[in-house]
Amino acid sequence: MITVLRLGHRVRRDKRVTTHCGLVSRALLADRFVLAGEEDNELLERLRSVSKKWGGTFKAKYEKDWKAFLKKEKKRGSVLIHLTFYGLPFQEQVASMRKKVGKKNLVIIVGAEKVPRELYALADFNLSVTLQPHSEIAALALFLDYWYGGKELGLAKQKRAFGNAVVRIVPQARGKKVLRVFG
Amino acid sequence: MITVLRLGHRVRRDKRVTTHCGLVSRALLADRFVLAGEEDNELLERLRSVSKKWGGTFKAKYEKDWKAFLKKEKKRGSVLIHLTFYGLPFQEQVASMRKKVGKKNLVIIVGAEKVPRELYALADFNLSVTLQPHSEIAALALFLDYWYGGKELGLAKQKRAFGNAVVRIVPQARGKKVLRVFG
Repeated sequence: MITVLRLGHRVRRDKRVTTHCGLVSRALLADRFVLAGEEDNELLERLRSVSKKWGGTFKAKYEKDWKAFLKKEKKRGSVLIHLTFYGLPFQEQVASMRKKVGKKNLVIIVGAEKVPRELYALADFNLSVTLQPHSEIAALALFLDYWYGGKELGLAKQKRAFGNAVVRIVPQARGKKVLRVFG
Repeated sequence: MITVLRLGHRVRRDKRVTTHCGLVSRALLADRFVLAGEEDNELLERLRSVSKKWGGTFKAKYEKDWKAFLKKEKKRGSVLIHLTFYGLPFQEQVASMRKKVGKKNLVIIVGAEKVPRELYALADFNLSVTLQPHSEIAALALFLDYWYGGKELGLAKQKRAFGNAVVRIVPQARGKKVLRVFG
């Protein structure tokens, strides 16, 4: 199971960026999105309604105490991966990480502006996606893609993951084709 | 040369998402960011100031008439790639695209909420990054990474690209290390 934990959410400022984090998690086949920081039920509802319409079993929930959450996950054997500007280049770590992680659950942590110092110690891996300032959304997407070795994008795999969709896109070279599934 | 064109920017609503698009373009070694939609000099200035501090030769500019811009690019031989929810799966197209593009310039187009219909006809390729709703920031990151075959992430390549930086991150397993270059 792959969980994405978003730290330090601020309702007003981060609404769209955090929503993108949630949607990317789902589209790239993470199982669960956990929101920390300010509570934001509207955002969680939006993510849930995307799943209802577009399929899948993606879960979204709020967690008041991120530290307690991570400690509990760690006790259960989950591996904590913190995506940060300052960490080791992720692409060089993925292969050896995969061996260490094996069948354990993964928690991928993405922060907002400033991340609490303790997280660097708590995380099993602090990983950077380039050493340049950019976007936690892009970092998350690239990490997930490398973690799965690109397999999450496979059409058969995506179809399976989102098989219970009400709405489906049929890829087109030009224009739009949307399928609505009834019944 | 790789240009990223952001369509339909709205100053109030898209400030952060568009900034992320610009920063991802730069971090993943695109050469130029072109903003269309509402003019936003503050945003362009922010992108330029990142380049000043973190290095590189990334350019950012505003373009009032995106259609004229794309037509001019096309006339000059550039290949136009439109990232859209409705297009063909990008990962299946990259190899054959690379052959067609050769040494021509690339313009990658990412829209905001709703994209003008004409773009689908104007683009040489309409490509989707999964068939699920998520994020133009993630789509852009994944496309660039596949386009470069992951080479844009190489430390030597990144170092060369951002060699003239004033501030540099030194990757750490834990904690933060920032290098300031004087002189």
